[in-house]
Amino acid sequence: MAASPSPRPGYGVDCSVARTLELIGERWTMMILRDAFYGVRRFDDFQADLGVARNILSKRLAGLVDSGIMRKVRYEERPPRYEYRLTEKGRDLIGIVTSLLAWGDKWESDEPPTRLIHTGCGEAVHAVAACSECGGAIDAFNLRIDPLPPIVAERLAERVAGA
Amino acid sequence: MAASPSPRPGYGVDCSVARTLELIGERWTMMILRDAFYGVRRFDDFQADLGVARNILSKRLAGLVDSGIMRKVRYEERPPRYEYRLTEKGRDLIGIVTSLLAWGDKWESDEPPTRLIHTGCGEAVHAVAACSECGGAIDAFNLRIDPLPPIVAERLAERVAGA
Repeated sequence: MAASPSPRPGYGVDCSVARTLELIGERWTMMILRDAFYGVRRFDDFQADLGVARNILSKRLAGLVDSGIMRKVRYEERPPRYEYRLTEKGRDLIGIVTSLLAWGDKWESDEPPTRLIHTGCGEAVHAVAACSECGGAIDAFNLRIDPLPPIVAERLAERVAGA
Repeated sequence: MAASPSPRPGYGVDCSVARTLELIGERWTMMILRDAFYGVRRFDDFQADLGVARNILSKRLAGLVDSGIMRKVRYEERPPRYEYRLTEKGRDLIGIVTSLLAWGDKWESDEPPTRLIHTGCGEAVHAVAACSECGGAIDAFNLRIDPLPPIVAERLAERVAGA
């Protein structure tokens, strides 16, 4: 990670996007989460699939447990063995993981290595962003932020004054 | 950023999630993108809003232009002045930015500092992940990946054999 910007009040970097990135933005962490959604649960399986160093994997899994995104569950008594499962908070990351996947498949991949099947309709699909209230599509042209960041409000006032 | 894992064929880290993170996962880069969606366009405005060092901002903006996510447009001839605007590829990141925001607002924020208004319905909304084909909700329980990662397929076969 780059040096963490210090939190500032209001706009700037004190926002939910920044907070989310702080928890899951690190690349190995996101690869672990993606694998967890694919059904991987055991330390050795994450390790084998990702080829990540064991000490890094161990730290990242502990961080995910600390932030309530995964929980460590014993699946064998003797010897004690554990697996890592997504919590509700973790499963709720599906919108982020699928939107990262959809964008990368579209813009950065000639031939995506995997397909996502929606069991609801049985089709190979990708995630699209929809409105929680009306279900309509969300895009860069039909959203606005309220209140406007001060700098944006200032520029708009300038344009009106100059018009 | 953590040291980049080297790409591996098939599963592992060679996937669209990893590629996307490589372009936008760094925290300042995502803060710049968020500001761009809010309407910020000028170098000094990004700088003032984020409080980021000018040399870092300069590098991150150049990276976003290089990867085709933003373009640099001259808005004044004398003296020459430029602003940074999202391209179509950049605007298509709206699903990622809004899903990061939605999750952070829900799980990591007592009182979100801003509201997102969907001009389609006029309501304060958050983004939900929907299926590109049927429009239905996407969640951790109604998606499967095809083909399964080898490690997951192996575990499933073990469970069937052990049952």
